Amino acid sequence: MEMDVKSLAIGIDTVWVLLCAALVFFMEAGFAFLEAGFIRAKNSLNIVMKVFMDCTAGMLSYFAIGFALMYGLDKAGFFGTSGFFLKGDFSHLGLDIPVYAYWIFQAAFAVAVASIVSGAVAERMKFAPYIIYTAVVCAIIYPIAGHWIWSSDGWLYQLGMMDFAGSTAVHAVGGWSALAAVLVLGPRLGKYNSDGSVNVLPAHNMHLAALGAFILWFGWFGFNPGSALSGLDGNIARIAVTTNLAAAAGGTMGTLFTMFRYGKPDPSMAINGALAGLVAITAGTAFVSPVSAVIIGGIAGVLVVLAVPFFDRLKADDPVGAIAVHGVCGSFGTLAVGIFAEEGGLLYGGGLQLLGVQALGLLAVSIWAFSMSYLVFYLIKKTVGIRVSADEEMEGLDMVEHGIPAYGGQNVNSLSTPDFGGTSPSGQKIAI
Amino acid sequence: MEMDVKSLAIGIDTVWVLLCAALVFFMEAGFAFLEAGFIRAKNSLNIVMKVFMDCTAGMLSYFAIGFALMYGLDKAGFFGTSGFFLKGDFSHLGLDIPVYAYWIFQAAFAVAVASIVSGAVAERMKFAPYIIYTAVVCAIIYPIAGHWIWSSDGWLYQLGMMDFAGSTAVHAVGGWSALAAVLVLGPRLGKYNSDGSVNVLPAHNMHLAALGAFILWFGWFGFNPGSALSGLDGNIARIAVTTNLAAAAGGTMGTLFTMFRYGKPDPSMAINGALAGLVAITAGTAFVSPVSAVIIGGIAGVLVVLAVPFFDRLKADDPVGAIAVHGVCGSFGTLAVGIFAEEGGLLYGGGLQLLGVQALGLLAVSIWAFSMSYLVFYLIKKTVGIRVSADEEMEGLDMVEHGIPAYGGQNVNSLSTPDFGGTSPSGQKIAI
Amino acid sequence: MEMDVKSLAIGIDTVWVLLCAALVFFMEAGFAFLEAGFIRAKNSLNIVMKVFMDCTAGMLSYFAIGFALMYGLDKAGFFGTSGFFLKGDFSHLGLDIPVYAYWIFQAAFAVAVASIVSGAVAERMKFAPYIIYTAVVCAIIYPIAGHWIWSSDGWLYQLGMMDFAGSTAVHAVGGWSALAAVLVLGPRLGKYNSDGSVNVLPAHNMHLAALGAFILWFGWFGFNPGSALSGLDGNIARIAVTTNLAAAAGGTMGTLFTMFRYGKPDPSMAINGALAGLVAITAGTAFVSPVSAVIIGGIAGVLVVLAVPFFDRLKADDPVGAIAVHGVCGSFGTLAVGIFAEEGGLLYGGGLQLLGVQALGLLAVSIWAFSMSYLVFYLIKKTVGIRVSADEEMEGLDMVEHGIPAYGGQNVNSLSTPDFGGTSPSGQKIAI
Repeated sequence: MEMDVKSLAIGIDTVWVLLCAALVFFMEAGFAFLEAGFIRAKNSLNIVMKVFMDCTAGMLSYFAIGFALMYGLDKAGFFGTSGFFLKGDFSHLGLDIPVYAYWIFQAAFAVAVASIVSGAVAERMKFAPYIIYTAVVCAIIYPIAGHWIWSSDGWLYQLGMMDFAGSTAVHAVGGWSALAAVLVLGPRLGKYNSDGSVNVLPAHNMHLAALGAFILWFGWFGFNPGSALSGLDGNIARIAVTTNLAAAAGGTMGTLFTMFRYGKPDPSMAINGALAGLVAITAGTAFVSPVSAVIIGGIAGVLVVLAVPFFDRLKADDPVGAIAVHGVCGSFGTLAVGIFAEEGGLLYGGGLQLLGVQALGLLAVSIWAFSMSYLVFYLIKKTVGIRVSADEEMEGLDMVEHGIPAYGGQNVNSLSTPDFGGTSPSGQKIAI
Repeated sequence: MEMDVKSLAIGIDTVWVLLCAALVFFMEAGFAFLEAGFIRAKNSLNIVMKVFMDCTAGMLSYFAIGFALMYGLDKAGFFGTSGFFLKGDFSHLGLDIPVYAYWIFQAAFAVAVASIVSGAVAERMKFAPYIIYTAVVCAIIYPIAGHWIWSSDGWLYQLGMMDFAGSTAVHAVGGWSALAAVLVLGPRLGKYNSDGSVNVLPAHNMHLAALGAFILWFGWFGFNPGSALSGLDGNIARIAVTTNLAAAAGGTMGTLFTMFRYGKPDPSMAINGALAGLVAITAGTAFVSPVSAVIIGGIAGVLVVLAVPFFDRLKADDPVGAIAVHGVCGSFGTLAVGIFAEEGGLLYGGGLQLLGVQALGLLAVSIWAFSMSYLVFYLIKKTVGIRVSADEEMEGLDMVEHGIPAYGGQNVNSLSTPDFGGTSPSGQKIAI
Repeated sequence: MEMDVKSLAIGIDTVWVLLCAALVFFMEAGFAFLEAGFIRAKNSLNIVMKVFMDCTAGMLSYFAIGFALMYGLDKAGFFGTSGFFLKGDFSHLGLDIPVYAYWIFQAAFAVAVASIVSGAVAERMKFAPYIIYTAVVCAIIYPIAGHWIWSSDGWLYQLGMMDFAGSTAVHAVGGWSALAAVLVLGPRLGKYNSDGSVNVLPAHNMHLAALGAFILWFGWFGFNPGSALSGLDGNIARIAVTTNLAAAAGGTMGTLFTMFRYGKPDPSMAINGALAGLVAITAGTAFVSPVSAVIIGGIAGVLVVLAVPFFDRLKADDPVGAIAVHGVCGSFGTLAVGIFAEEGGLLYGGGLQLLGVQALGLLAVSIWAFSMSYLVFYLIKKTVGIRVSADEEMEGLDMVEHGIPAYGGQNVNSLSTPDFGGTSPSGQKIAI
C-alpha cells in the first residue's frame, strides 16, 4: 500500500464526514415522526410523505441548483454561480475531502430546512404545492442564505458572523419560513375560538413524537461535530459535549418549567425543550464552554415554553412548535454566540462587536427567509392553491390526498374475514 | 505510541467497515418494520419475529457454514471450502483489515437476503419452517451466489461481472427467492377473486412502514459505501452521492408516476420507489456518474410501480412488494451497469461486452436462487408443512404462532381494572 | 497540512469514540421503546419521559458530579475527587483522545444505567422522585462502582477484575438497583393473586418493544467495540463479532427454549434473549473466542427465560424483565470471563484465580448497587413518596402525571369534527 500521511488525513476526514452525513440524513426520520406524532392521525401519513418529498424532490433540487447557488463561484457575496448538477470545478472551496463528501453532508442540511417547515404547515396544506415549495427552499431560499454565512466569499462570512453549524443558516431560515407559511395558510379549523381562546388539537401518538426526538438528538451527533468537516479537528469532541449538554439542559428546563408553571411536566415541552437546546447551541457549539452550553440550552428550554403560546396569541397556528423551536431558539442561539463565545463574546471581554454582527446577520437572513417563503407560499396560493377545502380538512389529508389512512382497517386486531369497503388509488378493492 | 502509516491505514479501514456494518445490520429493523407496517396487524408481530430470526439463527448459520462457502478456499469457481466457524486461515482473501471486520460486514449482508424473503411470505407462512429457510439461505443459497460474484476465484468474478454492493448478489437473490417462495406458498386468502380481480389487504400501519424505509435508506449509507471495504478508497464519497441520488430519484418518480397514473400519490409506492432506486444503484454505485444515478433511480421508481400489478396478474402474492423492489430492480440495476458504467458501459463506448457479462451473471444467479429456494420451500412443504391452516390464517399468525397480539388489550387507553381473559404461553392469565 | 502520525492516530481514535458514543446514546431510544412497548398503554408515555429524564437530568448530574467521582484523582481506590463540571486536570487518565471524547462516551454509559432501572419501576413510580433517583444514580451510585472497576486506581481494577464494557459496572449495577427499586415499590396492582398465581399485564405494543430491541442491538456496536477507546486497537473487530454472535445465540435460544417449554416461541423472550446475550458478553467480549461467545450468549438466552418467573415467585414485579436481563445475565457474564477468557479463564488453564476475582468484584459491586439504590428509594418513599395512589395507578400514569395520553383521541381515524372534552396542562381545551 502506497500511503502517505496526507492521504491518511483525507481518509479520516472523509470517513468522518460521510458518517456524520448519514446521521444528519437520518434526522429526516426524526422530523417525520416528531411531526406525525404531534398531529392528528388523519393527517399524519401526509406529513410523513411531505418529509419524504424533502428527502427526494428536495435533494434533487439541491443537486441540480441549490449547491451551485450556495458554494459555486461567488457573485458579489450574494450567491454562487457554478457547479450545477455537481459539475465543474470546486477548487475554490479549498476542500481536502472529495467534493462529493462535502455535497452529501450539505444536502442533508438542505433537506432539513424544508422539513422544519413541513411541521408548521401540517394538517391543511395540499401535497402537490408542498413539492414545489420543498424544491424552491432547497434550490434557492436556503442556499442563498447559506452562501452569505458559510461561503468564504459570502458577505456575512466576510463580516465575521459565527454560525458554526447553522442556528441561523438552517434553523432560523426554517423557523421564520415556517412563520411565513402559517401566516399565508391560516390556522387549522377549530384551533382558535371566536372568544380568543385556543384549543389543543391533540397529539395522536406521543411515542412517534418521542421517537422523532430521539432520532433528531442522535442525528445531532453528526450535525454539529460533523460541521467541522474534519475528524482531525481537535475541537470535535468538545463540540459533541456542548451539543449534548445543551440538549440535556433544554430538556430538563422544558420539563421543570412546565411542571412549575402548569402543575404537570409536559411531555411535548420536554421534547421541544431538548430540541430547543440543540437548536440554540448549534451556532456556538464550537465556541462556548460546556458550562455556557448548559446555560444556553437551559434558556432555550424555557424560551420554547414561552414562545408556543406567544405564537398562538398571534394566531400563527404551528401544530408542532417549529417556529418556537427553530425560529425563536435558532435566533437566540445566534445571539448567544455574541455573549458566550470564548473569543469575542460579551462575557469574555469581546464587547458588542461580535454580538452586533450576529444580530445583523440574523436579521438579514431572517428577513430573507421570511419574505422569500412568504412570496413563494403567496404565489402558490394565488395559482395552484395551497390549502385543502374545509370538508377535506375535516376528512383528513391522508384519505383526501393519498386514499389510504395511516392506520389501516377499523379494528387492527380484527379476527374477521376481509370486508371490502373501498377502492384503492389504483382501482383495487380495499379490504377493511 | 509506536504507530506506522500502515497501522493507521488499517485502523481507518477497520473503523470504517465496522461502523458501516452497524448501519447495514440496523437495516434489519428497517426490513422488520417496513414489512410489518405493510401487512395486517394480526400478522405483524410474526413477521417482525421472522426478521429477528434472520438476525439470530441466520447469523449463526452464516457463522457456522455460510462464510466458509462464500469466502473459503475456492473449489472450481463455485464455492469455498474452508473457514467454518470462522476458523482457519484467510490469507487468500488478501485483506488488510482483520477478517473479523470483514465477517461482520458480510454477515449483515447475509441476513439481509433472508429478510427480503420474509416480507413476501408474510401473513401465511409458518414460523418454525421459516427458521429452517433462513438458516439455509444464510448458509448455502446466498453464500454460493456471493462466491461466484465476489470471491476473486468465483467464475462470474473471473468473467468480469461488476456488482459493487450486490444488486445481483443480495437483491436479485433475495427477490427471486421471494418469487419462488410465494409460488410454493400460494396467495393469501381473499387476495384474488375468482373473476381475476385483486383485493388490497390493507397496510395496518404506514408509519411503521415509513420508519422501515427511513432506516433502510440510512443503512444504505453503510451498505454501498462500506462495500469499498476501505475508508481510504477515494471513491466512497461519490458512492454515497450516487446512492442517495438514486434513492431520491426513485422516490420522486414513485410518487409522481402514481400521481399521474392513479390520480393520487401513493405512499407505499413513494417508499418502494426510493427503495427501488437504492436497490438498482447498488451494483453500479461505484461506476456511474451522479446524473446516471438519477436516471437509474428514476427508472427503478417507475419499474416498481409497474411490477407490483404485474406479479399480481401472475397471482404471485407478495404482500410488501419484495419481488418488485429487489427482484425486478436488482435485475435492472445489474444490467444498468452494462449501460451506464463509465468504464465499459454501452453509453460510454464499451460496446455490449460488459452488458453481456452482466446479463449472463444475472441469469445464472437468478436461476440458482429461484430454483434452490423453490426446492427448499417445496421440501419444507412436503415434510413439516409450510402454511398455516385457513382458520389460523383468518385468526392471524400472531395469536396462532405466538399467543399474543402485536397490540395488546382491547382498549389501549383503558382506564378500567384488569380483566382476565386469556392464558399466556407460559400458562399465566392474561389481563386484557 | 502539518500532520504527523501521532495526530492522525488521535484523530482516528477520536472519530471512533465519538461515533460509538452516538450509538450508545441512541440506546436510550432503545430502552424507552422496549419498556414502553412491554407495558400497558396508559403508562407508556410516562416511562418514555422517565428515560428522557435520564438523558437530560441524568446527563447533567453526571457532568456536575458523576464523572469526577468516577475518573477524578483517586481516593484510596474508592472514588475520584476532581473534575467536577468537567473542569481541571485529567492527565492522570493517560488518554490520547481529548477528555471530552472520553466524557461523552462515559456519559452515555451513565444514563444507560439509570434507564435499566426505569423499566423495572414502570407503571407505578411517581415522576418527580424518579428525577431525583436518576440524578443520584448518575452522580454517585454508578460512578463509584465504575471507579472501582475501570479507574486504574480502583480497588477492583487493581485486583485484576476484567469487565471490558460493563457486564458488572453497567448491567449488574442497573439490574440489582432495579431489584432494590421493585422491592421498595411493591408490585403493580393486579399482578399477583392471593393464591400465589401470577397475571400477565399485557404488553401494549410489541412493535415498539421490538424497535427498542433493534436499536439496543445496533447501539451495542458502539457499546462494546467503542469501549476499546481506540480505533487502532487491533481487537475491535473481534469484539464486534463476539458481541453479535452472543446476541444471535441469545435470541435463538430464547426463541427455541420457549418454543419447547411453552409450545410457542415467545416474542418477548426472543427479544430479551438477544439482550441477555448482549449483556452477558459485555464483560468478556474482548477476551473470549467467537465460539465461546456463542456459548455465553446461548446460556444467557436460557437463563433469562428461567429468571423471569423466578423473580415473579419472589413477587419482585419487574414489568420489562430488567432484573433478569441485566442483573442475572450481567452477573453471569461477569463470571463467564473467569471461565472462558483465553488468558486466565478456567477452561484455558487459568485456574480459579480470575474466576475468584470476578466473583468478588461482582459481589462487591452488586451489594453496593443494591444497598445504595435500596437506601435512595427508601428515603424517597419516606419523604416525598414514591408511588402513585391506587386510583392513580388504575387511571394510568400518563393522564395522572402528564395530563395527556400516549395515544390521543378516542378514534385515531376519526372523521368527525373536534369535540372538546378536556383541559390541557396549560389550561387550553383539548379536542378529542
